[in-house]
Amino acid sequence: MIRQPLILVTNDDGILAPGLAALVEVVREIGEVIVVAPDSPQSGKGHAITIDEPLRINEVEAFDEVRAYECSGTPVDCVKLAMNVIEKDRPFDLCVSGINHGSNASINIIYSGTLSAAMEASLEGVNSIGFSLLDYSFDADFSKCKSYIAEICRLALEHGLGETNLLNVNIPLGDIKGVRICRQAEARWVEEFQQGKDPRGKSYYWLTGRFDNGSSPEETDLKALDEGYISIVPSMHDLTHYKAIAGLTKFAEIKV
Amino acid sequence: MIRQPLILVTNDDGILAPGLAALVEVVREIGEVIVVAPDSPQSGKGHAITIDEPLRINEVEAFDEVRAYECSGTPVDCVKLAMNVIEKDRPFDLCVSGINHGSNASINIIYSGTLSAAMEASLEGVNSIGFSLLDYSFDADFSKCKSYIAEICRLALEHGLGETNLLNVNIPLGDIKGVRICRQAEARWVEEFQQGKDPRGKSYYWLTGRFDNGSSPEETDLKALDEGYISIVPSMHDLTHYKAIAGLTKFAEIKV
Repeated sequence: MIRQPLILVTNDDGILAPGLAALVEVVREIGEVIVVAPDSPQSGKGHAITIDEPLRINEVEAFDEVRAYECSGTPVDCVKLAMNVIEKDRPFDLCVSGINHGSNASINIIYSGTLSAAMEASLEGVNSIGFSLLDYSFDADFSKCKSYIAEICRLALEHGLGETNLLNVNIPLGDIKGVRICRQAEARWVEEFQQGKDPRGKSYYWLTGRFDNGSSPEETDLKALDEGYISIVPSMHDLTHYKAIAGLTKFAEIKV
Repeated sequence: MIRQPLILVTNDDGILAPGLAALVEVVREIGEVIVVAPDSPQSGKGHAITIDEPLRINEVEAFDEVRAYECSGTPVDCVKLAMNVIEKDRPFDLCVSGINHGSNASINIIYSGTLSAAMEASLEGVNSIGFSLLDYSFDADFSKCKSYIAEICRLALEHGLGETNLLNVNIPLGDIKGVRICRQAEARWVEEFQQGKDPRGKSYYWLTGRFDNGSSPEETDLKALDEGYISIVPSMHDLTHYKAIAGLTKFAEIKV
């Protein structure tokens, strides 16, 4: 008997998110699935880990015939618990995270719990993919992207991910024209804070902002998405700016 | 009159951390300083932002003749508040974060609130530097590194940071032999969870782990630190794995 691939599924929108259910539906056809997801929404948690308090794990009946656990921590905590406590004796063949309700294209990758969870698994040598649909609503329609996600996961299991082991996959709204491999766009959030007074008259500041796409003629994820294509950005955890090393020799000459 | 440089100081160990006080002492000699730091320790918060609840800001008398604010959010929230609320009409010339109590070399950069705060400022175009001393204790001795930090900040203000605008600076214990510009080492955490029962008999899992340095003959931050040098890694927020793009053409051919 050929062993089925073992697939870890996680997300940052929490165990009850429809995007998670959609992803489970796709990958349960491909392998043995274990779900380990946060017990509450964890959007914007980036690569946060919980070190100052204990974590909890509860097995839950969230999906038919799929082992599933909710955890009290961040998305990265979920992956650490999955690999070191829940399923510590068998290595995962693939980790998929999402489907996120909302874009993780461009600079969003650094704020994203979805992608940070996938990155954490990739650090442990597991091929990992974060999936995000460009619709922030709870009842987003995940039906159009499922067959693409299935094919991407099958290819990853059959052929690996080449020189990387982490993909950031974003899915446009509407009809999908195909798939493009591209780089992360240079875009940014223009921040604003909603200011107000609480019921006791004390000031508060609530983060808001709008996404400034910038513009680029190059093959970026934002361009692919704009044109109706799924964007796949091969990603990495090495943040070294190699080209900048040579220009910093003055700093190596510091004497005090 | 020549305008003094405007310097934002933040950290992830919180407004009361001795490492923050040491950094303020250094940069107050160089420019006009504004401190915006978390009101509680925020280690391991990575690039987390607070979106589901309001944030608070309190001006505090923490340092003689230096404007200082404590905020209720993460280190990245502190930087966003500094730039968009507290000092929104004047651009900062430099952002410094730390001095962190403990290493942020190698892969620690992705978990680090200290470096994420600096990265957030760099995203807004401000030259930014995260400083970390390889001593996790509260009463770490910051005296030996102050003159190096002063020189690094002066150089950054005078000459800029070349092709990057983000430096990850780690400082060894003991006598400092000099400064090296290097790349982020490939190292990893070997995770373990301390398991126990709480007073009500419910299981908990508490993250622990040991750092596996690996070994590399190349010029990495860990090697520099091992040999008694301050490591400076020019860093970036573009996580694209460019070399991996060419190997993923199969994914671009997916048809459903």
